[in-house]
Amino acid sequence: MHLRPPATGKEPAVITVYHPEHPHSYIATLSRLLPGHTVSDQSEPCTRYAVVWNPPEGFFSRLSGLQGIFALGAGVDRLLGRHDLAADIPIYRLTDAGMAEQMIEYARYGVLHWQRSFDFYRTQQQVQQWQVQPDRRKADTRISVLGLGEMGGRVAAALAGDGYCVSGYSRKMRTLAGINCVHGEDQLNALLTQTDVLINLLPSTALTRGLLNAERLALLPAGSALIHAGRGDQLDENALLAALDSGVLRFALLDVFALEPLAAGHPLWRHPRTIITPHSAAQTLIGEAAAQIARRIQALEQGQEVTGKVERSRAY
Amino acid sequence: MHLRPPATGKEPAVITVYHPEHPHSYIATLSRLLPGHTVSDQSEPCTRYAVVWNPPEGFFSRLSGLQGIFALGAGVDRLLGRHDLAADIPIYRLTDAGMAEQMIEYARYGVLHWQRSFDFYRTQQQVQQWQVQPDRRKADTRISVLGLGEMGGRVAAALAGDGYCVSGYSRKMRTLAGINCVHGEDQLNALLTQTDVLINLLPSTALTRGLLNAERLALLPAGSALIHAGRGDQLDENALLAALDSGVLRFALLDVFALEPLAAGHPLWRHPRTIITPHSAAQTLIGEAAAQIARRIQALEQGQEVTGKVERSRAY
Repeated sequence: MHLRPPATGKEPAVITVYHPEHPHSYIATLSRLLPGHTVSDQSEPCTRYAVVWNPPEGFFSRLSGLQGIFALGAGVDRLLGRHDLAADIPIYRLTDAGMAEQMIEYARYGVLHWQRSFDFYRTQQQVQQWQVQPDRRKADTRISVLGLGEMGGRVAAALAGDGYCVSGYSRKMRTLAGINCVHGEDQLNALLTQTDVLINLLPSTALTRGLLNAERLALLPAGSALIHAGRGDQLDENALLAALDSGVLRFALLDVFALEPLAAGHPLWRHPRTIITPHSAAQTLIGEAAAQIARRIQALEQGQEVTGKVERSRAY
Repeated sequence: MHLRPPATGKEPAVITVYHPEHPHSYIATLSRLLPGHTVSDQSEPCTRYAVVWNPPEGFFSRLSGLQGIFALGAGVDRLLGRHDLAADIPIYRLTDAGMAEQMIEYARYGVLHWQRSFDFYRTQQQVQQWQVQPDRRKADTRISVLGLGEMGGRVAAALAGDGYCVSGYSRKMRTLAGINCVHGEDQLNALLTQTDVLINLLPSTALTRGLLNAERLALLPAGSALIHAGRGDQLDENALLAALDSGVLRFALLDVFALEPLAAGHPLWRHPRTIITPHSAAQTLIGEAAAQIARRIQALEQGQEVTGKVERSRAY
């Protein structure tokens, strides 16, 4: 027998949506899932919940009565430490929403690009050269995943399941079946020297900022590859260009950048050994994201606890 | 209790190896696995077994006493109908030898290239354009595999396991779990109209020669892709160029060609929508291939039946 939750006696909530590309899809879906509440992109003053992706500075100043913010994206670092947002308003992040599955696809593509020599074949095609590259088997391909949270853990597990030799680095010690897990700076540096394909999926925190600097990139074996889909501020882009030029890196598959969109004329656009994607490795699926948010708003309205609340001290 | 096989009283066998790239690796490995027999690349006249990859015309004329030929590669079409080879000498093909696993990798790469818009992002990178392409989920990506033999069947099953919507075409009716299987020309043509990524893994036979002609390519939806790793003679390369130019095909990932190596100056080298690999999609792994051949030679020497004998009437 189901017990009816107690009526809260609250007014219907006002929910303000900010999304630079498709606000109306979110508004339509949330309106359908939350009948009786008001969903709008008009920055209503009495907004109880904000559903946002990269809102401009000052956005939150116009909203009063805010009781919760839902981030449309895996990373919430850009919502922390803003001047227009009080530190006591809870921020909720999405739990997956189809993003890990996409990140697995993105990582697999980059790994296959290295393992099956598609970068060499592309160069050979430009000079019309027919030359078979030596085999590399999955079991002999050493993949290191930085970050073993919801995203990195799923990616590491999927690649291990494919048959690759997978290691993983995280801040705290973790244990994952079939993954060689390491933690701490010394172990990270040692791991880099034994890595063919480095996949960065770390969250952006004070501890990960600048992690992939010139010294660490220099630890990679000559002819390795980087798949960079964490956050732009974790990678020194000048050090990356040097590693590409020196041959430490055969190529870099890059989804995130220090400044996004990547500026026209930036040397990463033109480098022959980069593959640039526009922060598209794992896109939030509107239907799944809206369903998660609607479920949580309903729970919050009934005074229940919900999952996904960001711990501001560690930033994820 | 193991029974010892009866002694045959035969002389040790002479085994002649022909491989244009690494004959000595095969000779060393087979010599180790077949002690007492003679393994050589000197076209010994009294050769009992030949182990070959693309031997030149006339190669077999010098060998007498031949009782079996082992083909180092998935396709055996080039060994059929040769003037220097009597039709009653059995030809044996390798059973997988790690090749299906490699073909799965190759197919996955091509499918991800389409599904995750890496072709669009490559074009955008050239003009420094930051533009997210719309999502396509695996379940909404329609893959059709031509050929459901050892290679095609494994590729279709792997992609269905990944979560794609997979159909398969074969000459004879087949039933494979999780694959929409079709056969016959009418069903093939209907299937092509519902295909996002077409993967050709057919064997080269009289029936498959010229199968992918202008009429059939025109049945594909605009913006589909071709992964071509069967045999070069199955595809009309001029029709392919027309389909790439017209936008029927977003891109073609090509591993086999009417003439190999692909000639310098061939327009397929230079087309902006091709990815050319040098018949490297599924390379024979020397260790595994040599082990299979050694096991079969030992069995044949003991008068036993072995698997992998080619049925010349159907050419595979």
